[in-house]
Amino acid sequence: MDEFLKAALEEAEKGYAEGGIPIGSVLVHKGKIIGRGHNKRVQEGSVVLHGEMDALENAGRQPASIYRECTLYTTLSPCPMCSGTILLYGIPKVVIGENKTFMGEEELLRSRGVAVEVADNEVCYKLMQQFIQEKPELWNEDIGV
Amino acid sequence: MDEFLKAALEEAEKGYAEGGIPIGSVLVHKGKIIGRGHNKRVQEGSVVLHGEMDALENAGRQPASIYRECTLYTTLSPCPMCSGTILLYGIPKVVIGENKTFMGEEELLRSRGVAVEVADNEVCYKLMQQFIQEKPELWNEDIGV
Repeated sequence: MDEFLKAALEEAEKGYAEGGIPIGSVLVHKGKIIGRGHNKRVQEGSVVLHGEMDALENAGRQPASIYRECTLYTTLSPCPMCSGTILLYGIPKVVIGENKTFMGEEELLRSRGVAVEVADNEVCYKLMQQFIQEKPELWNEDIGV
Repeated sequence: MDEFLKAALEEAEKGYAEGGIPIGSVLVHKGKIIGRGHNKRVQEGSVVLHGEMDALENAGRQPASIYRECTLYTTLSPCPMCSGTILLYGIPKVVIGENKTFMGEEELLRSRGVAVEVADNEVCYKLMQQFIQEKPELWNEDIGV
């Protein structure tokens, strides 16, 4: 597995161990992780800190020029909120662990010029499937269903 | 002025007084404000807490059924991140103070069935113009420019 997708998966597993929603993300600039995070709905009662948002938040305030050279790695296809954030900051590339559990706004991202790569990773998929089986209502809450 | 837009403007003014970016928002459910907030980039070093996001965060974890009966008021046209969040949670209506300073993803919202109302409010506009004149680099950072 790609080392950065692996780092995102480690974040997802950390979230799972905390009793949270197991989605993780890392923001990578020129081959270096500058922010990592995972979904904090349970842990912090947050409705905005999805994995991708937490990684961006932990990367701190960056100039536009940095975001434009970044790749965002996420274990699951990004929802409308996270996709909108990718567009806001002009992040040019997203690598996605899987989109079988949830299909995010990949088409919108592509239509705006973002490079979207789907790894179709089985470990990411199985972790989400296990979680959804255990806590379906929590998953639904997280995607506004 | 609409009482809820006024509440959003009060949040924006609070942000301005704190040295922050003067954009405010309130989330209204059945005629009652359930969350209010303003941009926290300066105050908390946050890259995700735009006014709308802060209002949603302060409303706390809500079931989908509540969001679907809410209206989000914001002093400025919502950026891609905030618009994506409106879509994620299925908020059916957005009332916007002004969109002359910044045109957000109003078309995307409308295309997905969200009712978008623009008040074209002069007080909201003048506050943003004053702020941008004073701190243009901060404004650019906030919209990823």
